[in-house]
Amino acid sequence: MSYHFTTTLDLPFEQAIEKTTAALKENGFGVLTTIDVKKTLKEKIDTDFQPYTILGACNPHFAFKALSNENKIGTMLPCNVVVQQQEDGTIEISAVDPMASMQAIENPALGEIAGEVRDLLKEMIEAL
Amino acid sequence: MSYHFTTTLDLPFEQAIEKTTAALKENGFGVLTTIDVKKTLKEKIDTDFQPYTILGACNPHFAFKALSNENKIGTMLPCNVVVQQQEDGTIEISAVDPMASMQAIENPALGEIAGEVRDLLKEMIEAL
Repeated sequence: MSYHFTTTLDLPFEQAIEKTTAALKENGFGVLTTIDVKKTLKEKIDTDFQPYTILGACNPHFAFKALSNENKIGTMLPCNVVVQQQEDGTIEISAVDPMASMQAIENPALGEIAGEVRDLLKEMIEAL
Repeated sequence: MSYHFTTTLDLPFEQAIEKTTAALKENGFGVLTTIDVKKTLKEKIDTDFQPYTILGACNPHFAFKALSNENKIGTMLPCNVVVQQQEDGTIEISAVDPMASMQAIENPALGEIAGEVRDLLKEMIEAL
């Protein structure tokens, strides 16, 4: 099972982050967290890595519904969108498929919500 | 399949966050992100929720190994630990089981890393 939706953008890395953030906002997702993986790995273990940023995206309406139906689902929130620059320069955007990350959870109500969020993220990636 | 390891702490909410953060650090995990869910839901959709904080925990050595073996795994990082206060006042700490959240990914090398991180998080919760 694939666990992400991925596309490419013909933009510089920082502009790709801005465009992805704007597209998330248009689909009702705020970016709650940002992890600069390249910087973190350099600082913590002095290791070089490609430009790679993890955006933690959250639609508060869906998050509230998910939390109300499955109390521990915060262990899998927010939904991440990765913006990275591959070695050949390609800029890739990948959104998690919450149906994949949450598939171990047996809760039909949660599954329905995860399916709705999945559709929104998939459409967002396709429209980039 | 259960997807989290959970325990309770006989401490006030804020002190429970501090103790959990310290325990993560002892096990090699830094906290890269913090989401105050109660505050976020109040601000974004004016909805009341219990004290509920999501700590995004990352062991940089394991993260680098995971990213090197599975390029899109950032869509499921960092590993979350939730600290929450239930309605009866109980303080609960829940760490994600990365073997559960990553089970859709068919990659034996990643599975091995997820298993090691799982053991560290499980031990951290048991020792709290």
